[in-house]
Amino acid sequence: MSPISGGVRKKLINDPFDAVDEMVDGFVAAHSDIVRRVAERVVVRFPPDRPKVGLVIGGGSGHEPAFLGYVGPGLADAAAIGNIFAAPSPETCLTAIRATSTGMGVILVYGNYAGDRMNFGIAAERAAAEGIEVRTVLVTDDVASAPPAEIERRRGIAGDIVVFKCAGAMAERGATLDEVERIARAANDATRTMGVALYPCEVPGTGRLSFELSEDEIEIGLGLHGEPGVRRGPLLSADETAEILVATILADLPERARHEVAVLVNGLGATAQLDLYILYRAARRALERAGHAVSRSFVGDYITSLEMAGASVTVMCLDDELRGLLDDPARTARSNW
Amino acid sequence: MSPISGGVRKKLINDPFDAVDEMVDGFVAAHSDIVRRVAERVVVRFPPDRPKVGLVIGGGSGHEPAFLGYVGPGLADAAAIGNIFAAPSPETCLTAIRATSTGMGVILVYGNYAGDRMNFGIAAERAAAEGIEVRTVLVTDDVASAPPAEIERRRGIAGDIVVFKCAGAMAERGATLDEVERIARAANDATRTMGVALYPCEVPGTGRLSFELSEDEIEIGLGLHGEPGVRRGPLLSADETAEILVATILADLPERARHEVAVLVNGLGATAQLDLYILYRAARRALERAGHAVSRSFVGDYITSLEMAGASVTVMCLDDELRGLLDDPARTARSNW
Repeated sequence: MSPISGGVRKKLINDPFDAVDEMVDGFVAAHSDIVRRVAERVVVRFPPDRPKVGLVIGGGSGHEPAFLGYVGPGLADAAAIGNIFAAPSPETCLTAIRATSTGMGVILVYGNYAGDRMNFGIAAERAAAEGIEVRTVLVTDDVASAPPAEIERRRGIAGDIVVFKCAGAMAERGATLDEVERIARAANDATRTMGVALYPCEVPGTGRLSFELSEDEIEIGLGLHGEPGVRRGPLLSADETAEILVATILADLPERARHEVAVLVNGLGATAQLDLYILYRAARRALERAGHAVSRSFVGDYITSLEMAGASVTVMCLDDELRGLLDDPARTARSNW
Repeated sequence: MSPISGGVRKKLINDPFDAVDEMVDGFVAAHSDIVRRVAERVVVRFPPDRPKVGLVIGGGSGHEPAFLGYVGPGLADAAAIGNIFAAPSPETCLTAIRATSTGMGVILVYGNYAGDRMNFGIAAERAAAEGIEVRTVLVTDDVASAPPAEIERRRGIAGDIVVFKCAGAMAERGATLDEVERIARAANDATRTMGVALYPCEVPGTGRLSFELSEDEIEIGLGLHGEPGVRRGPLLSADETAEILVATILADLPERARHEVAVLVNGLGATAQLDLYILYRAARRALERAGHAVSRSFVGDYITSLEMAGASVTVMCLDDELRGLLDDPARTARSNW
């Protein structure tokens, strides 16, 4: 008798309560050339050969390849993870901070969720009491989660990835804590995301879907934890969907001048990569029609919500500095040929 | 009105008949730093700086990131693709061969399907008539598709990827056509795959699922074109599933001696990466219990069937030569941090 009967989605797991630990087990066994595990829910890169600012990322599980898949040279020094869609514990966060401290300070970069803020915050205070200088930058790229006047309330979704990348590259270059913090804030300020949900996911063990959506409906403005979106409507074509996502992002950008931008089209887990490239094509065209030049592109499942279907479009306004940081080499579990 | 209404799966596409061309459009726009398009359905890497054996891969669309995502330095020189789950045309294959010929010969490596054999075969004859030396190696890793006595009838599934990688690395080293062919055959001979299907996919425009499976059933021995498997049974845990897949692979290996192996756990499109790492952990344990040592690991969506759910386990028996070829650097669209 399978321990996973009773779920509403067929999954390849064992006991739902073991899912995260078994996933981490598998991850560190598969990628032992890049990472090692220093606690139950903390994965670190092999130590750098000289002191550097430590970059700690993290959040709930269920977003794979985030967050473990972005640990490695040129990107994060450690990832602290929690249960599925739940913040890592303060102890987990503190272990990650300690493990990445080489005397130049540690920066925590994570999506803006109450649980993560609380637990990373407690850990940051304790680390400070131990003499480690800690800075925090919250990722707030999700346009749908709060109006422009309350931008600090916005959640972090797929924009996480490009913010991590820029901060990680800056730290790898040997920059100071001030400089890495400046870059992380600049990267976040330059980044906006809008997504669309097609099908929900099931958190293992719950026996129910994360939301209900009829067979001909989509939700614009998805959350990364199986949350529904902010506006329900009929299923649209990729071109129509991209038009809405891009228009919402462009209306939210602080200035309307022509921008050089990076685009990340992120799949939520169950959407075909064929669809992601069609959506990317449409988003790129919409951006170009608005006078923007797309100079860097990323298409794939970068941060997921289990087997949720849907996708998001992230636009990052580039300058020479951010473009160079995106281009710097990095080696992580995600980037095997 | 969306042109995609009438489907049974919500998709982010436009007119189903434009899906492949729009996907290629998006792909080459996103990855113009690595590839260029030389025909409607042919993508090539930027020309190598010296003559080398050309490696042409390909097959139907709907398997993204295969096949376009494996074009680049250290891997394939060109990919020729067809409609969704359909072979590329002879003209497409011939264009790919011509585009990669630099005087040292061209090798075609693709999964063993009748349509691909016919069309790549016609193209190979025409290319030979033009004076290009062409070799062909068929990938036949799918244990479920024919018994050992008829191994040449087996299909190519996720094993494609590790065979491409070894052949591509050998060609990149400057090896002769004979040597690259020898490696491609050795890599294929060393590789076995068994998969499990959880949910079917819908080919855009067909309005129906590729097969039917009840809510508590799985199929062992999936095909890569939405085909059902060879044995239907109840949903099993990841550990039980891995046990069956690995036992079937091990029983099929030509010798039972202890092997150093590479493992690829491939997701079919809609299975959460959390699940893939749990399945990887179980497969690795099953292999280790049988006395095998897992020294190289790949976990992710390497070759998919649109939004089909399920996964496969590929085992490749390694020697120093194959291990070294897997380790050689490669740069493709798939491998962005």
